[in-house]
Amino acid sequence: MSEPRIVTAAVLIIGNEILSGRTRDVNLAYLAAGLTELGIRLREARVVADVEADIVRAVNECRARYDYVFTTGGIGPTHDDITAECVAKAFGLKLIRHPEAVARLERHYEPGMLNEARLRMANTPEGAILVDNPVSTAPGFQIGNVFVLAGVPSIMQAMFDGLKPRLAGGAPVLSRTVSAFVGEGTIAPGLGELQQRYPDLDIGSYPFFRGGKYGASFVLRGTETARIDGAATELRTLIVSLGADPIEGEPAGR
Amino acid sequence: MSEPRIVTAAVLIIGNEILSGRTRDVNLAYLAAGLTELGIRLREARVVADVEADIVRAVNECRARYDYVFTTGGIGPTHDDITAECVAKAFGLKLIRHPEAVARLERHYEPGMLNEARLRMANTPEGAILVDNPVSTAPGFQIGNVFVLAGVPSIMQAMFDGLKPRLAGGAPVLSRTVSAFVGEGTIAPGLGELQQRYPDLDIGSYPFFRGGKYGASFVLRGTETARIDGAATELRTLIVSLGADPIEGEPAGR
Repeated sequence: MSEPRIVTAAVLIIGNEILSGRTRDVNLAYLAAGLTELGIRLREARVVADVEADIVRAVNECRARYDYVFTTGGIGPTHDDITAECVAKAFGLKLIRHPEAVARLERHYEPGMLNEARLRMANTPEGAILVDNPVSTAPGFQIGNVFVLAGVPSIMQAMFDGLKPRLAGGAPVLSRTVSAFVGEGTIAPGLGELQQRYPDLDIGSYPFFRGGKYGASFVLRGTETARIDGAATELRTLIVSLGADPIEGEPAGR
Repeated sequence: MSEPRIVTAAVLIIGNEILSGRTRDVNLAYLAAGLTELGIRLREARVVADVEADIVRAVNECRARYDYVFTTGGIGPTHDDITAECVAKAFGLKLIRHPEAVARLERHYEPGMLNEARLRMANTPEGAILVDNPVSTAPGFQIGNVFVLAGVPSIMQAMFDGLKPRLAGGAPVLSRTVSAFVGEGTIAPGLGELQQRYPDLDIGSYPFFRGGKYGASFVLRGTETARIDGAATELRTLIVSLGADPIEGEPAGR
Protein backbone atom coordinates (compact mmCIF):
# COMPACT_ATOMS: atom_id res chain seq x y z
CA MET A 1 0.00 0.00 0.00
CA SER A 2 1.46 3.36 -0.94
CA GLU A 3 1.61 6.09 1.69
CA PRO A 4 -0.85 8.91 1.03
CA ARG A 5 1.01 12.10 0.21
CA ILE A 6 1.22 14.68 2.99
CA VAL A 7 0.15 18.08 1.68
CA THR A 8 1.28 21.09 3.72
CA ALA A 9 0.40 24.77 3.91
CA ALA A 10 1.36 28.00 5.63
CA VAL A 11 -0.80 31.05 6.32
CA LEU A 12 0.69 34.53 6.17
CA ILE A 13 -1.34 37.22 7.93
CA ILE A 14 -0.24 40.64 6.74
CA GLY A 15 -1.05 43.72 8.77
CA ASN A 16 0.25 46.08 11.44
CA GLU A 17 -3.19 46.08 13.09
CA ILE A 18 -2.83 42.47 14.26
CA LEU A 19 0.66 43.09 15.67
CA SER A 20 -0.37 46.27 17.49
CA GLY A 21 -3.26 44.48 19.18
CA ARG A 22 -5.85 46.75 17.51
CA THR A 23 -7.45 43.91 15.57
CA ARG A 24 -7.87 40.34 16.73
CA ASP A 25 -7.23 37.95 13.86
CA VAL A 26 -10.05 35.54 13.07
CA ASN A 27 -8.84 34.39 9.65
CA LEU A 28 -6.32 31.86 10.96
CA ALA A 29 -8.94 29.74 12.72
CA TYR A 30 -11.15 29.71 9.60
CA LEU A 31 -8.31 28.69 7.30
CA ALA A 32 -7.01 26.12 9.80
CA ALA A 33 -10.39 24.38 9.96
CA GLY A 34 -10.97 24.61 6.19
CA LEU A 35 -7.55 23.25 5.28
CA THR A 36 -7.91 20.38 7.74
CA GLU A 37 -11.18 19.40 6.06
CA LEU A 38 -9.40 19.32 2.69
CA GLY A 39 -6.66 17.04 4.03
CA ILE A 40 -4.08 19.84 3.93
CA ARG A 41 -1.86 20.16 7.02
CA LEU A 42 -1.39 23.73 8.15
CA ARG A 43 2.20 23.59 9.39
CA GLU A 44 2.93 27.22 10.10
CA ALA A 45 1.29 30.62 10.35
CA ARG A 46 3.00 33.99 10.46
CA VAL A 47 1.82 37.49 11.18
CA VAL A 48 4.00 40.14 9.54
CA ALA A 49 3.89 43.93 9.42
CA ASP A 50 3.11 46.07 6.38
CA VAL A 51 6.83 46.25 5.63
CA GLU A 52 8.05 45.22 2.19
CA ALA A 53 11.23 43.41 3.27
CA ASP A 54 9.35 41.43 5.93
CA ILE A 55 6.59 40.33 3.55
CA VAL A 56 8.97 39.38 0.73
CA ARG A 57 11.11 37.29 3.07
CA ALA A 58 8.14 35.53 4.65
CA VAL A 59 6.58 34.74 1.24
CA ASN A 60 9.83 33.29 -0.04
CA GLU A 61 10.57 31.25 3.08
CA CYS A 62 7.06 29.81 3.20
CA ARG A 63 6.55 29.07 -0.50
CA ALA A 64 9.81 27.10 -0.52
CA ARG A 65 8.89 25.05 2.56
CA TYR A 66 5.20 24.26 2.03
CA ASP A 67 2.94 23.08 -0.77
CA TYR A 68 0.56 26.02 -0.41
CA VAL A 69 0.78 29.51 1.05
CA PHE A 70 -2.28 31.63 1.79
CA THR A 71 -1.84 35.32 2.52
CA THR A 72 -4.53 37.53 4.07
CA GLY A 73 -4.64 41.32 4.08
CA GLY A 74 -3.01 44.22 2.29
CA ILE A 75 -4.91 44.13 -1.01
CA GLY A 76 -7.12 47.21 -0.60
CA PRO A 77 -6.74 50.63 -2.28
CA THR A 78 -4.76 52.55 0.35
CA HIS A 79 -1.02 53.24 0.62
CA ASP A 80 -0.58 50.58 3.34
CA ASP A 81 -1.86 47.85 0.97
CA ILE A 82 1.36 46.50 -0.50
CA THR A 83 0.83 42.74 -0.70
CA ALA A 84 0.60 42.47 -4.51
CA GLU A 85 3.85 44.40 -5.05
CA CYS A 86 5.60 42.34 -2.39
CA VAL A 87 4.48 39.00 -3.81
CA ALA A 88 5.58 40.08 -7.30
CA LYS A 89 8.97 41.04 -5.87
CA ALA A 90 9.24 37.74 -3.99
CA PHE A 91 8.72 35.85 -7.27
CA GLY A 92 10.94 38.22 -9.26
CA LEU A 93 7.96 38.99 -11.52
CA LYS A 94 6.72 42.23 -13.03
CA LEU A 95 3.68 43.81 -11.37
CA ILE A 96 1.03 44.31 -14.07
CA ARG A 97 -2.50 45.70 -14.16
CA HIS A 98 -4.52 42.54 -14.72
CA PRO A 99 -7.01 43.22 -17.59
CA GLU A 100 -9.76 40.91 -16.29
CA ALA A 101 -9.47 42.45 -12.80
CA VAL A 102 -9.80 45.93 -14.34
CA ALA A 103 -12.88 44.79 -16.26
CA ARG A 104 -14.48 43.50 -13.06
CA LEU A 105 -13.80 46.77 -11.23
CA GLU A 106 -15.20 48.77 -14.19
CA ARG A 107 -18.45 46.79 -14.01
CA HIS A 108 -18.63 47.24 -10.23
CA TYR A 109 -18.00 50.97 -9.73
CA GLU A 110 -20.27 53.76 -10.83
CA PRO A 111 -18.87 56.10 -13.48
CA GLY A 112 -16.20 58.41 -12.05
CA MET A 113 -15.59 56.29 -8.93
CA LEU A 114 -12.84 54.05 -10.35
CA ASN A 115 -9.85 56.25 -9.53
CA GLU A 116 -6.17 55.29 -9.64
CA ALA A 117 -6.23 54.14 -5.99
CA ARG A 118 -9.04 51.67 -6.68
CA LEU A 119 -7.37 50.53 -9.92
CA ARG A 120 -4.34 49.50 -7.83
CA MET A 121 -6.57 46.64 -6.63
CA ALA A 122 -6.25 45.18 -10.14
CA ASN A 123 -2.45 44.91 -9.85
CA THR A 124 -1.04 41.38 -9.82
CA PRO A 125 2.27 39.72 -10.62
CA GLU A 126 2.48 38.85 -14.33
CA GLY A 127 0.87 35.45 -14.94
CA ALA A 128 -1.37 35.46 -11.87
CA ILE A 129 -4.77 33.73 -11.90
CA LEU A 130 -7.57 35.70 -10.26
CA VAL A 131 -9.38 34.56 -7.12
CA ASP A 132 -13.06 35.60 -7.20
CA ASN A 133 -14.44 38.06 -4.68
CA PRO A 134 -18.23 37.61 -4.60
CA VAL A 135 -18.57 40.14 -1.75
CA SER A 136 -16.95 43.35 -3.02
CA THR A 137 -15.53 42.46 -6.48
CA ALA A 138 -11.83 43.40 -6.11
CA PRO A 139 -10.20 40.00 -6.66
CA GLY A 140 -7.41 38.11 -4.95
CA PHE A 141 -4.98 36.11 -7.03
CA GLN A 142 -2.89 32.97 -7.25
CA ILE A 143 0.71 32.96 -8.42
CA GLY A 144 2.55 29.66 -8.25
CA ASN A 145 1.68 28.04 -4.93
CA VAL A 146 0.77 31.36 -3.26
CA PHE A 147 -2.86 32.46 -2.87
CA VAL A 148 -3.39 36.13 -2.05
CA LEU A 149 -6.66 36.75 -0.18
CA ALA A 150 -8.38 39.75 1.43
CA GLY A 151 -8.04 40.56 5.12
CA VAL A 152 -11.70 41.43 5.83
CA PRO A 153 -13.00 38.12 7.22
CA SER A 154 -16.25 37.90 5.21
CA ILE A 155 -14.36 38.50 1.95
CA MET A 156 -11.49 36.20 2.89
CA GLN A 157 -13.92 33.40 3.69
CA ALA A 158 -15.81 33.78 0.41
CA MET A 159 -12.53 33.81 -1.55
CA PHE A 160 -11.21 30.71 0.22
CA ASP A 161 -14.47 28.79 -0.16
CA GLY A 162 -14.50 29.59 -3.88
CA LEU A 163 -10.98 28.39 -4.56
CA LYS A 164 -11.26 25.10 -2.67
CA PRO A 165 -11.78 23.13 -5.93
CA ARG A 166 -8.30 24.31 -7.06
CA LEU A 167 -6.62 22.78 -4.00
CA ALA A 168 -5.38 19.20 -4.06
CA GLY A 169 -5.56 17.74 -0.58
CA GLY A 170 -3.88 14.65 0.80
CA ALA A 171 -5.30 11.99 3.06
CA PRO A 172 -7.94 13.68 5.25
CA VAL A 173 -6.90 14.10 8.86
CA LEU A 174 -9.34 12.34 11.17
CA SER A 175 -9.58 13.36 14.78
CA ARG A 176 -11.16 12.01 17.94
CA THR A 177 -11.24 13.57 21.39
CA VAL A 178 -11.50 11.80 24.76
CA SER A 179 -11.48 13.86 27.96
CA ALA A 180 -11.20 13.09 31.66
CA PHE A 181 -10.95 14.83 35.00
CA VAL A 182 -7.41 13.61 35.57
CA GLY A 183 -4.26 15.67 36.04
CA GLU A 184 -2.04 15.93 32.95
CA GLY A 185 0.98 15.00 35.05
CA THR A 186 -0.80 11.89 36.35
CA ILE A 187 -1.67 10.53 32.92
CA ALA A 188 1.53 11.75 31.23
CA PRO A 189 3.56 8.52 31.62
CA GLY A 190 0.82 6.28 30.19
CA LEU A 191 -0.02 8.81 27.50
CA GLY A 192 3.61 9.01 26.41
CA GLU A 193 3.73 5.21 26.10
CA LEU A 194 0.51 5.26 24.06
CA GLN A 195 2.08 7.82 21.69
CA GLN A 196 5.10 5.51 21.31
CA ARG A 197 2.87 2.55 20.43
CA TYR A 198 1.02 4.71 17.87
CA PRO A 199 3.77 6.73 16.15
CA ASP A 200 1.49 7.21 13.12
CA LEU A 201 -0.94 9.20 15.28
CA ASP A 202 -0.50 12.66 16.72
CA ILE A 203 -1.69 12.60 20.33
CA GLY A 204 -2.21 15.98 21.98
CA SER A 205 -3.05 16.80 25.60
CA TYR A 206 -4.94 20.01 26.43
CA PRO A 207 -5.59 20.86 30.07
CA PHE A 208 -8.79 22.52 31.27
CA PHE A 209 -10.37 23.68 34.53
CA ARG A 210 -14.14 23.06 34.74
CA GLY A 211 -16.51 23.28 37.67
CA GLY A 212 -13.60 23.65 40.07
CA LYS A 213 -11.79 20.54 38.80
CA TYR A 214 -8.68 20.04 36.66
CA GLY A 215 -8.79 17.73 33.67
CA ALA A 216 -7.54 17.40 30.12
CA SER A 217 -8.78 16.62 26.63
CA PHE A 218 -6.75 14.16 24.61
CA VAL A 219 -6.94 14.57 20.85
CA LEU A 220 -5.99 11.63 18.60
CA ARG A 221 -5.28 12.63 15.02
CA GLY A 222 -4.34 10.47 12.06
CA THR A 223 -5.47 9.20 8.69
CA GLU A 224 -6.71 5.67 9.58
CA THR A 225 -9.95 5.17 11.50
CA ALA A 226 -8.93 1.75 12.80
CA ARG A 227 -5.74 3.10 14.36
CA ILE A 228 -7.57 5.99 16.00
CA ASP A 229 -10.21 3.60 17.34
CA GLY A 230 -7.52 1.31 18.72
CA ALA A 231 -5.70 4.13 20.48
CA ALA A 232 -8.99 5.53 21.84
CA THR A 233 -9.84 2.14 23.38
CA GLU A 234 -6.43 1.94 25.05
CA LEU A 235 -6.75 5.55 26.22
CA ARG A 236 -10.11 4.85 27.88
CA THR A 237 -8.59 1.85 29.67
CA LEU A 238 -5.71 4.05 30.85
CA ILE A 239 -8.13 6.69 32.19
CA VAL A 240 -10.16 4.07 34.08
CA SER A 241 -6.95 2.61 35.55
CA LEU A 242 -6.26 6.06 37.05
CA GLY A 243 -9.67 6.08 38.74
CA ALA A 244 -11.36 8.55 36.36
CA ASP A 245 -14.21 8.31 33.85
CA PRO A 246 -13.49 8.75 30.13
CA ILE A 247 -15.69 11.40 28.50
CA GLU A 248 -16.29 11.18 24.75
CA GLY A 249 -15.38 14.57 23.20
CA GLU A 250 -14.97 17.73 25.23
CA PRO A 251 -16.55 18.00 28.69
CA ALA A 252 -19.72 20.10 28.96
CA GLY A 253 -19.76 23.45 30.76
CA ARG A 254 -16.92 25.83 31.35
CA MET B 1 18.07 65.27 20.09
CA SER B 2 18.98 61.61 19.89
CA GLU B 3 16.52 59.22 18.31
CA PRO B 4 14.83 56.95 20.82
CA ARG B 5 15.89 53.36 20.28
CA ILE B 6 13.37 51.11 18.52
CA VAL B 7 12.90 47.90 20.53
CA THR B 8 11.41 44.94 18.65
CA ALA B 9 9.88 41.60 19.55
CA ALA B 10 8.47 38.43 18.03
CA VAL B 11 5.92 36.03 19.49
CA LEU B 12 6.19 32.30 18.84
CA ILE B 13 3.00 30.35 19.48
CA ILE B 14 3.81 26.65 19.79
CA GLY B 15 1.10 24.05 19.38
CA ASN B 16 -0.62 21.76 16.90
CA GLU B 17 -4.00 22.71 18.39
CA ILE B 18 -3.83 26.24 16.97
CA LEU B 19 -2.83 25.01 13.51
CA SER B 20 -5.56 22.35 13.41
CA GLY B 21 -8.24 24.89 14.26
CA ARG B 22 -9.12 23.11 17.52
CA THR B 23 -8.05 26.03 19.70
CA ARG B 24 -8.36 29.70 18.89
CA ASP B 25 -5.28 31.57 20.06
CA VAL B 26 -5.92 34.45 22.44
CA ASN B 27 -2.36 34.95 23.65
CA LEU B 28 -1.18 36.96 20.66
CA ALA B 29 -3.66 39.79 21.24
CA TYR B 30 -2.71 39.99 24.93
CA LEU B 31 1.02 40.10 24.22
CA ALA B 32 0.54 42.55 21.34
CA ALA B 33 -1.30 45.02 23.57
CA GLY B 34 1.08 44.54 26.51
CA LEU B 35 4.23 45.01 24.41
CA THR B 36 2.81 48.12 22.77
CA GLU B 37 2.24 49.63 26.22
CA LEU B 38 5.88 48.96 27.08
CA GLY B 39 7.10 50.69 23.93
CA ILE B 40 8.17 47.38 22.37
CA ARG B 41 7.20 46.89 18.71
CA LEU B 42 5.84 43.44 17.99
CA ARG B 43 7.20 42.91 14.49
CA GLU B 44 6.31 39.28 13.82
CA ALA B 45 4.32 36.39 15.24
CA ARG B 46 4.56 32.75 14.24
CA VAL B 47 2.51 29.70 15.01
CA VAL B 48 4.50 26.47 14.73
CA ALA B 49 3.66 22.82 15.27
CA ASP B 50 4.96 20.60 18.10
CA VAL B 51 7.82 19.52 15.83
CA GLU B 52 11.37 19.90 17.07
CA ALA B 53 12.98 21.04 13.82
CA ASP B 54 10.25 23.65 13.26
CA ILE B 55 10.54 25.09 16.77
CA VAL B 56 14.36 25.19 16.76
CA ARG B 57 14.42 26.97 13.41
CA ALA B 58 11.76 29.51 14.40
CA VAL B 59 13.50 30.29 17.72
CA ASN B 60 16.83 30.83 15.99
CA GLU B 61 15.42 32.95 13.17
CA CYS B 62 13.45 35.15 15.57
CA ARG B 63 16.06 35.60 18.30
CA ALA B 64 18.57 36.78 15.70
CA ARG B 65 16.15 39.27 14.15
CA TYR B 66 14.41 40.81 17.16
CA ASP B 67 15.35 42.19 20.56
CA TYR B 68 12.93 39.92 22.40
CA VAL B 69 11.19 36.62 21.63
CA PHE B 70 8.23 35.33 23.63
CA THR B 71 7.13 31.73 23.21
CA THR B 72 3.80 30.36 24.42
CA GLY B 73 2.88 26.72 24.89
CA GLY B 74 4.58 23.33 25.16
CA ILE B 75 5.87 23.53 28.75
CA GLY B 76 3.49 21.07 30.44
CA PRO B 77 4.21 17.53 31.63
CA THR B 78 3.05 15.49 28.61
CA HIS B 79 5.05 14.01 25.72
CA ASP B 80 3.89 16.75 23.33
CA ASP B 81 5.46 19.44 25.55
CA ILE B 82 8.89 19.87 23.97
CA THR B 83 9.56 23.62 24.11
CA ALA B 84 12.32 23.54 26.78
CA GLU B 85 14.32 20.88 24.90
CA CYS B 86 13.90 22.75 21.63
CA VAL B 87 15.00 26.10 23.06
CA ALA B 88 18.08 24.45 24.64
CA LYS B 89 18.91 22.90 21.26
CA ALA B 90 18.40 26.24 19.48
CA PHE B 91 20.95 27.86 21.84
CA GLY B 92 23.30 24.85 21.76
CA LEU B 93 22.95 24.54 25.54
CA LYS B 94 22.56 21.52 27.79
CA LEU B 95 19.08 20.84 29.15
CA ILE B 96 19.31 20.68 32.94
CA ARG B 97 16.85 20.11 35.77
CA HIS B 98 16.71 23.58 37.34
CA PRO B 99 17.14 23.21 41.15
CA GLU B 100 14.96 26.19 42.09
CA ALA B 101 12.21 24.98 39.74
CA VAL B 102 12.36 21.52 41.36
CA ALA B 103 12.12 23.12 44.81
CA ARG B 104 9.01 25.05 43.76
CA LEU B 105 7.34 21.92 42.40
CA GLU B 106 8.23 20.01 45.58
CA ARG B 107 6.51 22.67 47.68
CA HIS B 108 3.46 22.68 45.38
CA TYR B 109 2.64 18.98 44.97
CA GLU B 110 1.41 16.67 47.70
CA PRO B 111 3.73 13.82 48.62
CA GLY B 112 3.80 11.11 45.94
CA MET B 113 2.35 13.35 43.20
CA LEU B 114 5.64 14.76 41.85
CA ASN B 115 6.40 12.04 39.31
CA GLU B 116 9.01 12.12 36.55
CA ALA B 117 6.51 13.62 34.07
CA ARG B 118 5.82 16.58 36.37
CA LEU B 119 9.55 16.97 37.11
CA ARG B 120 10.12 17.50 33.38
CA MET B 121 8.45 20.90 33.95
CA ALA B 122 11.62 21.87 35.88
CA ASN B 123 13.84 21.32 32.82
CA THR B 124 15.49 24.42 31.37
CA PRO B 125 18.53 25.21 29.27
CA GLU B 126 21.63 25.63 31.47
CA GLY B 127 21.85 29.24 32.70
CA ALA B 128 18.15 30.03 32.36
CA ILE B 129 16.44 32.46 34.74
CA LEU B 130 13.00 31.35 35.95
CA VAL B 131 9.77 33.17 35.10
CA ASP B 132 7.31 32.99 38.00
CA ASN B 133 4.00 31.17 37.65
CA PRO B 134 1.67 32.47 40.37
CA VAL B 135 -1.24 30.38 39.01
CA SER B 136 0.00 26.78 38.97
CA THR B 137 3.68 26.98 40.10
CA ALA B 138 5.51 25.26 37.19
CA PRO B 139 7.69 28.15 35.98
CA GLY B 140 8.58 29.49 32.58
CA PHE B 141 12.11 30.70 31.93
CA GLN B 142 14.29 33.24 30.19
CA ILE B 143 17.43 32.33 28.28
CA GLY B 144 19.21 35.11 26.42
CA ASN B 145 16.54 37.22 24.75
CA VAL B 146 13.98 34.39 24.67
CA PHE B 147 11.15 34.19 27.22
CA VAL B 148 9.39 30.83 27.45
CA LEU B 149 5.81 31.14 28.73
CA ALA B 150 2.86 28.80 29.26
CA GLY B 151 0.13 28.30 26.66
CA VAL B 152 -2.87 28.37 29.02
CA PRO B 153 -3.99 32.02 28.75
CA SER B 154 -4.49 32.74 32.48
CA ILE B 155 -1.00 31.39 33.25
CA MET B 156 0.62 33.08 30.26
CA GLN B 157 -0.87 36.42 31.27
CA ALA B 158 0.30 36.14 34.88
CA MET B 159 3.81 35.18 33.72
CA PHE B 160 4.02 38.07 31.26
CA ASP B 161 2.69 40.62 33.73
CA GLY B 162 5.26 39.46 36.28
CA LEU B 163 8.25 39.76 33.99
CA LYS B 164 7.41 43.21 32.62
CA PRO B 165 9.96 44.91 34.95
CA ARG B 166 12.71 42.87 33.22
CA LEU B 167 11.82 44.29 29.80
CA ALA B 168 13.46 47.48 28.55
CA GLY B 169 11.06 49.29 26.24
CA GLY B 170 11.79 52.05 23.76
CA ALA B 171 9.83 55.18 23.06
CA PRO B 172 6.16 54.37 23.77
CA VAL B 173 4.03 54.10 20.65
CA LEU B 174 1.16 56.58 20.77
CA SER B 175 -1.90 56.02 18.68
CA ARG B 176 -4.94 58.01 17.62
CA THR B 177 -7.91 56.87 15.58
CA VAL B 178 -10.19 58.99 13.38
CA SER B 179 -13.04 57.32 11.47
CA ALA B 180 -15.44 58.38 8.74
CA PHE B 181 -18.17 57.00 6.53
CA VAL B 182 -16.08 57.44 3.40
CA GLY B 183 -14.93 54.78 0.94
CA GLU B 184 -11.30 53.73 1.35
CA GLY B 185 -10.77 54.18 -2.39
CA THR B 186 -12.16 57.72 -2.21
CA ILE B 187 -9.83 58.87 0.54
CA ALA B 188 -6.84 56.79 -0.60
CA PRO B 189 -5.11 59.51 -2.71
CA GLY B 190 -5.26 62.14 0.04
CA LEU B 191 -4.37 59.60 2.71
CA GLY B 192 -1.31 58.48 0.74
CA GLU B 193 -0.17 62.11 0.47
CA LEU B 194 -0.67 62.56 4.22
CA GLN B 195 1.52 59.49 4.87
CA GLN B 196 4.23 61.00 2.64
CA ARG B 197 4.13 64.28 4.57
CA TYR B 198 4.39 62.33 7.87
CA PRO B 199 6.94 59.59 7.15
CA ASP B 200 7.67 59.32 10.90
CA LEU B 201 4.08 58.16 11.49
CA ASP B 202 2.51 54.86 10.55
CA ILE B 203 -0.93 55.56 9.06
CA GLY B 204 -3.24 52.56 8.69
CA SER B 205 -6.65 52.34 7.03
CA TYR B 206 -9.17 49.73 8.23
CA PRO B 207 -12.49 49.44 6.42
CA PHE B 208 -15.76 48.66 8.18
CA PHE B 209 -19.45 48.24 7.37
CA ARG B 210 -21.84 49.71 9.97
CA GLY B 211 -25.53 50.35 9.82
CA GLY B 212 -25.58 49.56 6.11
CA LYS B 213 -22.81 52.04 5.26
CA TYR B 214 -19.15 51.62 4.31
CA GLY B 215 -16.47 53.54 6.11
CA ALA B 216 -12.97 53.22 7.47
CA SER B 217 -10.97 53.88 10.60
CA PHE B 218 -7.64 55.61 10.17
CA VAL B 219 -5.04 54.88 12.83
CA LEU B 220 -2.12 57.28 13.30
CA ARG B 221 0.79 55.79 15.24
CA GLY B 222 4.05 57.37 16.26
CA THR B 223 6.15 58.51 19.18
CA GLU B 224 5.50 62.29 19.18
CA THR B 225 2.16 63.70 20.28
CA ALA B 226 2.61 66.92 18.32
CA ARG B 227 3.14 65.05 15.05
CA ILE B 228 0.10 62.84 15.63
CA ASP B 229 -2.02 65.88 16.46
CA GLY B 230 -0.83 67.65 13.31
CA ALA B 231 -1.63 64.68 11.10
CA ALA B 232 -5.02 64.20 12.79
CA THR B 233 -5.94 67.84 12.07
CA GLU B 234 -5.01 67.43 8.40
CA LEU B 235 -6.89 64.14 8.23
CA ARG B 236 -10.08 65.73 9.59
CA THR B 237 -9.78 68.48 6.97
CA LEU B 238 -9.35 65.83 4.27
CA ILE B 239 -12.46 63.95 5.45
CA VAL B 240 -14.55 67.15 5.46
CA SER B 241 -13.31 68.00 1.94
CA LEU B 242 -14.77 64.66 0.81
CA GLY B 243 -18.17 65.58 2.24
CA ALA B 244 -18.02 63.31 5.31
CA ASP B 245 -17.87 63.93 9.05
CA PRO B 246 -14.75 62.96 11.01
CA ILE B 247 -15.51 60.70 14.00
CA GLU B 248 -13.04 60.67 16.89
CA GLY B 249 -12.09 57.01 17.58
CA GLU B 250 -14.05 54.06 16.26
CA PRO B 251 -17.69 54.54 15.19
CA ALA B 252 -20.34 53.24 17.60
CA GLY B 253 -22.46 50.18 16.80
CA ARG B 254 -21.62 47.34 14.49
